[in-house]
Amino acid sequence: MNVTFREARREDVPVIVAMLADDALGAAREGTDLAPYLAAFDAMQEEGGNHLIVGEEDGRIVATYQLTFISGLSLSAARRAQIESVRVASDVRGAGLGAEMMRDAEARARAAGCSLLQLTTNKSRDRAHAFYERIGFTASHIGFKRSLD
Amino acid sequence: MNVTFREARREDVPVIVAMLADDALGAAREGTDLAPYLAAFDAMQEEGGNHLIVGEEDGRIVATYQLTFISGLSLSAARRAQIESVRVASDVRGAGLGAEMMRDAEARARAAGCSLLQLTTNKSRDRAHAFYERIGFTASHIGFKRSLD
Repeated sequence: MNVTFREARREDVPVIVAMLADDALGAAREGTDLAPYLAAFDAMQEEGGNHLIVGEEDGRIVATYQLTFISGLSLSAARRAQIESVRVASDVRGAGLGAEMMRDAEARARAAGCSLLQLTTNKSRDRAHAFYERIGFTASHIGFKRSLD
Repeated sequence: MNVTFREARREDVPVIVAMLADDALGAAREGTDLAPYLAAFDAMQEEGGNHLIVGEEDGRIVATYQLTFISGLSLSAARRAQIESVRVASDVRGAGLGAEMMRDAEARARAAGCSLLQLTTNKSRDRAHAFYERIGFTASHIGFKRSLD
């Protein structure tokens, strides 16, 4: 595959949302009204260092992830790059695109002065866990969530 | 205790760094040169929605945490509030300040339109895990880290 990664544009939002929903967990939690997604895209552009990335092959979006740069004081004032909302189109899974995406994230993180990549995955995503350990991540933390709805 | 929470100021950085270091894990990973911490504080101010909070009692800083608002498309375009670098001064631990701090985080998160609070803690922090579950968090995720040094 010959995939190039770039910042998402507003007109990419529908296909990104479709990819988010085409997932064992995502299917139950994404909606069909695009308005809140477009508003969230606009909000992301206003937030410094919050990037929505797509992978494109021959003009088709086949992968997406979110990368957020977060400065902070801890870990000797480390700037962190946080990966979120990773998806690969269902018909191209297993072709190494996940690893390519993580290399793209690493390059962007280093360019932004980050010394740490971090992400959380749901405990049920066994294949994702093995993947992240294979490419050098350590499962050192527990991720806690609390809904405010 | 009568603690009020407010945004940290640049002159608070030394005491915050001392609190970050006064910790089982933090002791090994914080430095003594303040310059990178001050630079990180300045960088935080430039990043939209990245807040360093302190809890103050009678003019003394006794607690700190970082709260970052992150817009995104997933989870029906949920805005997340991420908690990081939580510390309570060693001589006032066990007095309920952690729970007060989390209530402050929740109020700020709701005011910023967030529908999810999230954080990760190192697997070794057993007492922290019990605490977060007690106040309504679910340990649904695994947190992966990868150093870029």
